Amino acid sequence: MRLAHPLPPNSVIGILGGGQLGRMLALAAARLGLRCHIYAPEADSPAFQVAAAFTCAAYDDRDALEAFAAAVDVVTYEFENVPAETASILGRLKPLAPGAEALATSQDRFVEKTFLAGIGLETAPFAAVDDEAGLERAVARIGRPSILKTRRFGYDGKGQTTLRAETALAAAWAQIGARPAILEGFVAFEKEVSVIAARGWDGAIAVYDVPENRHANHILHQSIVPAAIAPETAAEAREIAARIAAALDYVGVIGVELFFARGQGAERLIVNEIAPRVHNSGHWTMDACTVSQFEQHIRAVAGWPLGSPERHSDVIMTNLLGEDAENWQNLAREPHSGLHLYGKAECRAGRKMGHINRLTPRQG
Amino acid sequence: MRLAHPLPPNSVIGILGGGQLGRMLALAAARLGLRCHIYAPEADSPAFQVAAAFTCAAYDDRDALEAFAAAVDVVTYEFENVPAETASILGRLKPLAPGAEALATSQDRFVEKTFLAGIGLETAPFAAVDDEAGLERAVARIGRPSILKTRRFGYDGKGQTTLRAETALAAAWAQIGARPAILEGFVAFEKEVSVIAARGWDGAIAVYDVPENRHANHILHQSIVPAAIAPETAAEAREIAARIAAALDYVGVIGVELFFARGQGAERLIVNEIAPRVHNSGHWTMDACTVSQFEQHIRAVAGWPLGSPERHSDVIMTNLLGEDAENWQNLAREPHSGLHLYGKAECRAGRKMGHINRLTPRQG
Repeated sequence: MRLAHPLPPNSVIGILGGGQLGRMLALAAARLGLRCHIYAPEADSPAFQVAAAFTCAAYDDRDALEAFAAAVDVVTYEFENVPAETASILGRLKPLAPGAEALATSQDRFVEKTFLAGIGLETAPFAAVDDEAGLERAVARIGRPSILKTRRFGYDGKGQTTLRAETALAAAWAQIGARPAILEGFVAFEKEVSVIAARGWDGAIAVYDVPENRHANHILHQSIVPAAIAPETAAEAREIAARIAAALDYVGVIGVELFFARGQGAERLIVNEIAPRVHNSGHWTMDACTVSQFEQHIRAVAGWPLGSPERHSDVIMTNLLGEDAENWQNLAREPHSGLHLYGKAECRAGRKMGHINRLTPRQG
Repeated sequence: MRLAHPLPPNSVIGILGGGQLGRMLALAAARLGLRCHIYAPEADSPAFQVAAAFTCAAYDDRDALEAFAAAVDVVTYEFENVPAETASILGRLKPLAPGAEALATSQDRFVEKTFLAGIGLETAPFAAVDDEAGLERAVARIGRPSILKTRRFGYDGKGQTTLRAETALAAAWAQIGARPAILEGFVAFEKEVSVIAARGWDGAIAVYDVPENRHANHILHQSIVPAAIAPETAAEAREIAARIAAALDYVGVIGVELFFARGQGAERLIVNEIAPRVHNSGHWTMDACTVSQFEQHIRAVAGWPLGSPERHSDVIMTNLLGEDAENWQNLAREPHSGLHLYGKAECRAGRKMGHINRLTPRQG
């Protein structure tokens, strides 16, 4: 179902997922005079604290989903692992953005890579793996080192393992749970970058500047904006994101992760994966832009004009994981810095507790 | 009661008042991982939509106030007309910021002017008026034109009337409701400016740049930042606000309204009034500064380090009154602009429905 008209102030945005992304979406919607209704199964969801209404129920609770759909004007989500059946129920009752195609594409690494290659974008070499014999065939084709990943439900390095020369294939296959998988060839990249883009119901596109992303233990540590890459390469990255969004008839904010490599002196971009939602590598927009990725997503799904993605400052976003956030008093003291804490009651090692955006004057 | 220690994330800020100021305070608190509990008598209070908890009860409901105090870690407010008894009940149970002295001083125009004059600041000539005979004596001293204002509960031009040469004093006295009043001499000012300052429990001070404020029908229309006044005058205005905050042992954000006049070529500042709360003329900080006045107030009352009040852009804030907000689609389309709508269900003529901050690169 498509949105019939732009949603006026006081309309209700339904959001599946109650974590920090849902919370920041709700805060951004409130700025525009829109109300949020959060749907999440966890009783202590941080987004519940800032929403006009919430439903605490399982994603397969059909009655709760129908009542939720009746209470909202549009449905969106903060995570890509929304069950297909949930999306299907809601999408029949209310406009759902991003749509079912974007969700299905990004939920399965093999479907995703096939889609990307199909629209002419460079990806790592890849092959589907359905069983141990299939893994042997894939290794014969892709070689080693390579990475074996489950097709579904992986994030932050979970559900994947590296195949080195000495790795026993049976052990690797067991390690990822003997589930449908994809084998990806190694890309000798120099750095990782990403693009945060937004697309409206009307096809309008807005694309933010490109950050360089640094990871630690498979979790994003920092996004540095702008990335130190040639302006033409940055423009190409933005163009790739716009092309992906258009091909999916996408509505909302999309995150596109890319590898940046250099071959024979030329800069090269290889698409790694897409996230059909606001993205951790876009958190810098909250302090360096007038319209953040969260407001941009709300604008897109609500049928509002997209905001200018222009950046007034250079910025380094640093995630605060686990006990990093216990340093809040010193972080709050830093000048030219936007501090964001997520209202999570429990602090666990590696858990995303907040982030800080450190601004410097724009260099160009 | 003073705050014993800085309030860690997930602490609860109690806010009296559920209008747009309470709402923007709650949104700012959420950014820092603090929870808000709003207390307001109106069932459709916009701040309820974004708060972790709310109490809908009258300000003289002692049971509700005591339950509210038990549920929060500090109490603040969005409006200066908090009943003294309400403040007294809460202040005995939990830290209250700004404190009772600031509240008492700003609630009564005569007490306020006496305080300002007492710390050596220039104000308009003024005299207390308790009855019609007193009004005659005051006019004999202050002259005409002058302005008769109720001592208490005036805002946005309400509860005041101008005495011109032909005005009958009895009629003027009746018009303001024959209530305890103050007569203020006219100030021949060139423009109105204001200062938004914050002071912490530890006495730390942070002061934002000075806006020029333009009014229409006694309601703020625009704040233009920076005001076109000499740098030394701007510095003096900031110094005046800091002096007022220190003299009141103030905790939180304070708004100080001043008249800017020119006499024999020299620039002069006359203090008009103080508001013991975040202030409409500080809304520009939401888009032109990394730490807005709302976050600054939350930091101050929660015992956090104050943020840098530095401004990265020049800005004009324009209030959206009544049907101005119906133009939201065009306003949302403007580049370099932060649009804020307050989630008010009913649009009435002259009602503050939102504001827009139009940014331009900082000129110096």
